[in-house]
Amino acid sequence: MIDRLVIFGVGLIGGSLALALREAGEVGTVVGCSRNPDNLREAERLGVIDEWTTDPAEAARGADMGVLAVPLGAMEGLAASLAGIWPEDAPLTDVGSSKQAVLEALARGFGEVPRQFVPGHPIAGTEQSGVAAAFPELFRERLVILTPADATSVMATNRVTAMWQTAGARVEFMTPAHHDHVLAATSHLPHVLAFTLVASLSKMSDRDEIFHYAAGGFRDFTRIASSDPVVWRDICLANGPSILEVIERYQADLESLRQAIEQGDGQRLEQEFTHAKTTRDRFCDPARAQLDT
Amino acid sequence: MIDRLVIFGVGLIGGSLALALREAGEVGTVVGCSRNPDNLREAERLGVIDEWTTDPAEAARGADMGVLAVPLGAMEGLAASLAGIWPEDAPLTDVGSSKQAVLEALARGFGEVPRQFVPGHPIAGTEQSGVAAAFPELFRERLVILTPADATSVMATNRVTAMWQTAGARVEFMTPAHHDHVLAATSHLPHVLAFTLVASLSKMSDRDEIFHYAAGGFRDFTRIASSDPVVWRDICLANGPSILEVIERYQADLESLRQAIEQGDGQRLEQEFTHAKTTRDRFCDPARAQLDT
Repeated sequence: MIDRLVIFGVGLIGGSLALALREAGEVGTVVGCSRNPDNLREAERLGVIDEWTTDPAEAARGADMGVLAVPLGAMEGLAASLAGIWPEDAPLTDVGSSKQAVLEALARGFGEVPRQFVPGHPIAGTEQSGVAAAFPELFRERLVILTPADATSVMATNRVTAMWQTAGARVEFMTPAHHDHVLAATSHLPHVLAFTLVASLSKMSDRDEIFHYAAGGFRDFTRIASSDPVVWRDICLANGPSILEVIERYQADLESLRQAIEQGDGQRLEQEFTHAKTTRDRFCDPARAQLDT
Repeated sequence: MIDRLVIFGVGLIGGSLALALREAGEVGTVVGCSRNPDNLREAERLGVIDEWTTDPAEAARGADMGVLAVPLGAMEGLAASLAGIWPEDAPLTDVGSSKQAVLEALARGFGEVPRQFVPGHPIAGTEQSGVAAAFPELFRERLVILTPADATSVMATNRVTAMWQTAGARVEFMTPAHHDHVLAATSHLPHVLAFTLVASLSKMSDRDEIFHYAAGGFRDFTRIASSDPVVWRDICLANGPSILEVIERYQADLESLRQAIEQGDGQRLEQEFTHAKTTRDRFCDPARAQLDT
């Protein structure tokens, strides 16, 4: 049970977490805190939060648990405003997509990584953003990765783990660096590719016609290009080195496939496509992979 | 009403068309023809076809309408086996994703493009393949592009148009070259990018773990990488020039974005991502585009 939960940044993720804990009856008062009063009023109206303030110091008073759900670029400033104020016995966690950057931001903001801070990342979300898109089932059966720092207390880790389990998630642990490497491959790279595709097509002279003929496959493929631009700007800045590494691998593989098309190398193309299909079916659709063997 | 419909290649597309026409009560006998008796037996068992033969000449006898739904690479051989045999008053159409290549294949196979041939391409499909995946609603409200050749008779075009409308589709017309350019951008390029992403990640040493943490966005993004490798090999070979053109544009745009990440150019990243999101929302999700403005 969390008596007083503070959500910093009440959007899709923070809002859905509040709703999930509320639905489970495991939270007393939910306090929303952000720079934007309109957003907070909407969250209150939607029943996502009970109280709100734009002042982090006020939000911190009497808090039992804090969730930093702001874009990565806002993390350090927020941490600085909580330094020396955030209750020592209240776990603080975040939902950012780059764990090393968040730890650095917290270390700079607080002077050092606070013992009660548990870096976290729910592998969930939709391409929608904003509190109006929040719903309590968002984390059900989803993975949440926690990447405790050396300084992080076991008590804080346990309470944050319990909170996410209450919201329906499965919790796993890894190091911040490994998290950033894995997420660069499975999430950040696909987002970069999808944003680039839509941008690339939108520059073509007959783009209106092109989008008119785009079918379901294109919609699925580009869905993540409708994600929040500021969130993704910050992720690209925060996890730059890992993202650059996977982009460069990808560029080499794409160039190699381009050459196969240029050379009319059907055998090579079939090989590559079969390999991709087999891999995806095995990992993303085991039922189909079985059928095909 | 089509008395005797011949489907060459009874997979997802050919099978779904047969089912749609059957459901509409607009077809008498459906004849399946392919090289693979197992596939044809399955199609018969599933009620998709009434009769089958592996001999194109036998299939052609008494046909009222023919649909070439084989991979592009099999088109010329099939056309050659129908030359001089296919009834002159029976329209023949296809469902291939590259119209110039199909016209060339038909011209080579028949000696010249037959008057009853109407090149066509339903902009519909799923990443599934095979007759077991066929369903009658596949084309409902979907676009079918017809690209009549100079030689194509008006009678044949009208009857093929009516057939697709009966299956629930909207029919539009364009030139073969323009079709190939548009489809390279909206369909062929995304498929190449998705196949390449899965292949690229599958080469990483920790790929099992990487795929374990892949979430919904990744599944959507890579769904088309589960498409039939032979079909896509043939599309890449048949529509090579148009596909190479859009790949090269894409490579330039991806490199430019990579540099923005490398340089930590947040303003540029936000600009690109916002542009992509706005474009996608406007074309693929008008309701959301309105909300955001």
